[in-house]
Amino acid sequence: MTTAAATRPPPTRRDEFSVLRTITTRWMDNDQYGHVNNVVYYSYFDTAVNGYLIEASGCDVRQLPAIGIVAETSCKFIGELTFPDTVYAGLALERLGNSSVIYRIGLFRNQEVEPAAIGRFVHVYVDSATRRPVPIPPQVRAALQTLDEGYAGFGALP
Amino acid sequence: MTTAAATRPPPTRRDEFSVLRTITTRWMDNDQYGHVNNVVYYSYFDTAVNGYLIEASGCDVRQLPAIGIVAETSCKFIGELTFPDTVYAGLALERLGNSSVIYRIGLFRNQEVEPAAIGRFVHVYVDSATRRPVPIPPQVRAALQTLDEGYAGFGALP
Amino acid sequence: MTTAAATRPPPTRRDEFSVLRTITTRWMDNDQYGHVNNVVYYSYFDTAVNGYLIEASGCDVRQLPAIGIVAETSCKFIGELTFPDTVYAGLALERLGNSSVIYRIGLFRNQEVEPAAIGRFVHVYVDSATRRPVPIPPQVRAALQTLDEGYAGFGALP
Amino acid sequence: MTTAAATRPPPTRRDEFSVLRTITTRWMDNDQYGHVNNVVYYSYFDTAVNGYLIEASGCDVRQLPAIGIVAETSCKFIGELTFPDTVYAGLALERLGNSSVIYRIGLFRNQEVEPAAIGRFVHVYVDSATRRPVPIPPQVRAALQTLDEGYAGFGALP
Repeated sequence: MTTAAATRPPPTRRDEFSVLRTITTRWMDNDQYGHVNNVVYYSYFDTAVNGYLIEASGCDVRQLPAIGIVAETSCKFIGELTFPDTVYAGLALERLGNSSVIYRIGLFRNQEVEPAAIGRFVHVYVDSATRRPVPIPPQVRAALQTLDEGYAGFGALP
Repeated sequence: MTTAAATRPPPTRRDEFSVLRTITTRWMDNDQYGHVNNVVYYSYFDTAVNGYLIEASGCDVRQLPAIGIVAETSCKFIGELTFPDTVYAGLALERLGNSSVIYRIGLFRNQEVEPAAIGRFVHVYVDSATRRPVPIPPQVRAALQTLDEGYAGFGALP
Repeated sequence: MTTAAATRPPPTRRDEFSVLRTITTRWMDNDQYGHVNNVVYYSYFDTAVNGYLIEASGCDVRQLPAIGIVAETSCKFIGELTFPDTVYAGLALERLGNSSVIYRIGLFRNQEVEPAAIGRFVHVYVDSATRRPVPIPPQVRAALQTLDEGYAGFGALP
Repeated sequence: MTTAAATRPPPTRRDEFSVLRTITTRWMDNDQYGHVNNVVYYSYFDTAVNGYLIEASGCDVRQLPAIGIVAETSCKFIGELTFPDTVYAGLALERLGNSSVIYRIGLFRNQEVEPAAIGRFVHVYVDSATRRPVPIPPQVRAALQTLDEGYAGFGALP
């Protein structure tokens, strides 16, 4: 990781995310204004992060002794999504710590290049029994480092 | 239980249900036609049944060695519901067997007497580990018999 | 339509449905027993039917002067679904009337041949302003007849 | 509004919110870790804000010529919520502008005094047809000023 990398701006456009997850919208995602309700965007975040972790780690992360608990999330709504769009969720690392990880997520409508939303999603790993913070499990960390490499060190902690 | 009881028509109007559970609607329950989406009615069923069982049994039914798995559900949509309505879910027993129970559910909009929907909800009790059918746990059966008494034997199995 | 067609058993296995719609599961579809919650199955039905109609009719059916209102639904839960499964929803016609249509729906887990659930979904077409029953719009009927032909008249009304 | 007011810390504890909205949890709100899924907290925000506006304005805000579009939201998850808890959503104004409003929201579990979550919810008012920003409608502004007075000018814009 280089100093230059640390100053790279965070990914925003579709081609700036190395991982894109595919999510199909649902009829009931639309609210009465005819667009996907703001709440549902967070279910796309949740699904993209956990789906990636399960696939990239090769294990069911829900069964590990340490599980990721969501500590904080946020979203800027930029453009609209509507059923029957397909949503592509771009995943990047904003920070990778000892027991926590911050994802940056971009949601893209069908083949659009500019995001419909940009979000932030913070996972803290806790012991699944005591719920106290513990280091990120090695299987998850390995998956995250793959994600990290795609961005040449973007936002990683020292 | 008497033969007469077995021929009583099933409850339909609000005052024919002895148990009414209160459920608040949510903004996102509405779909783009401006009314509560059909799918959401089933979340009211789910919530009414499980909320009643937890309260009437005095225990967290999710922690018992036998858990209720949903085997079949259905709903007739009669009238509309819309946010910010309050929904009242009437619960009655249609059948109470050894390892399964069938609920009849009426959904009422605010103070209305005629139902917005009538549903059917079938729980089969299974061992929480093996997922094979087992008798209804005694704590749950006791709660159901209270419900049953409210209907003087409506629909109970011989 | 032939008499023979009318006596054909309804489709149940994957290869008995001519139309299969792809739906991605979401992390929050799972309930605390670790499987897709029963309510969510109905969102798959809703999505499969409306997604098919929009695609096969070539128009946004929500903007037509007559819209499909859900009058009744039901589901038998046969096998489990769980995130991150992909769900394939098979669509068939059970009945096609003047102003209503009954779909038979099979949900298939990933590449499985036997259904995880079999459902029924009844749409009644109403005037979007008055909400009174009207004939199925020609664009929708054309899409449904395509579906019908796939089943050689299965279940169609005289 | 006084300068002193502008320096008052934002409300965090239950008794620091003058408006509390009641929301019933649902069985399916729980995810497979046995607690309300992070996504669902945002449906509580959505419901609290819109339910308050409908009630306090005395009109169906969805039918006004200007509607509130969600521009940004965020949430810090502090404590857990679980079905069958009742959630109380405290509402306060963080900022009130010409065409936008920022709410601060606290979610409280049953009778607890410390929040389970603190959120931020930004509405921008747009013309319901053109979707371009317009001033907050007078009926909504009147409702917001009532909310504002409860906080002696907390966070209002100059």
